[in-house]
Amino acid sequence: MAGFRHVVIFRWNENATDERKRAMVDGLNALPGAIPEIEAYHVGGDAGINPGNYDFAVVADFADRDAYLVYRDHPVHRAVINEHITPILAERAAVQYEL
Amino acid sequence: MAGFRHVVIFRWNENATDERKRAMVDGLNALPGAIPEIEAYHVGGDAGINPGNYDFAVVADFADRDAYLVYRDHPVHRAVINEHITPILAERAAVQYEL
Repeated sequence: MAGFRHVVIFRWNENATDERKRAMVDGLNALPGAIPEIEAYHVGGDAGINPGNYDFAVVADFADRDAYLVYRDHPVHRAVINEHITPILAERAAVQYEL
Repeated sequence: MAGFRHVVIFRWNENATDERKRAMVDGLNALPGAIPEIEAYHVGGDAGINPGNYDFAVVADFADRDAYLVYRDHPVHRAVINEHITPILAERAAVQYEL
């Protein structure tokens, strides 16, 4: 397997209502339709098994680093971040790596 | 796509020499051969594109939550954590979610 993976984990703040989280998920799930460089995209809320976990994860796969950069800087992606993630964000942990 | 995904991101401490990181990667990459419940397993060090990133990510896919729990509690996995991750660990962020 070759490719480039973006992994990001979020912890939400006290403004993260169910409605806001639904809008965030809808915004993220629209990105594969808007950004053809995305090869695989799986987001989800924590299953609640392990104490101390963060709240939400995004794993996105690309052909290579340049394709990831298109996604990172894409205006539709930036709009989802600005409108739906930043307002409910407490903590963020991210890594990008070669597959 | 159905399944259950485990995502964990690490930041290493000042004891994380190249030699220790190589031993950690070797230990993790041996797990799919030891734990048949692992369906996909991709680990990697941060590509260094984005400031503020953590250092290393593990994304592991399973058929379901029970298969993940076998992995989580497997003695070979716990040994890798105890011997190769905990000694170099500064921060950890994890999420498990349904695919």
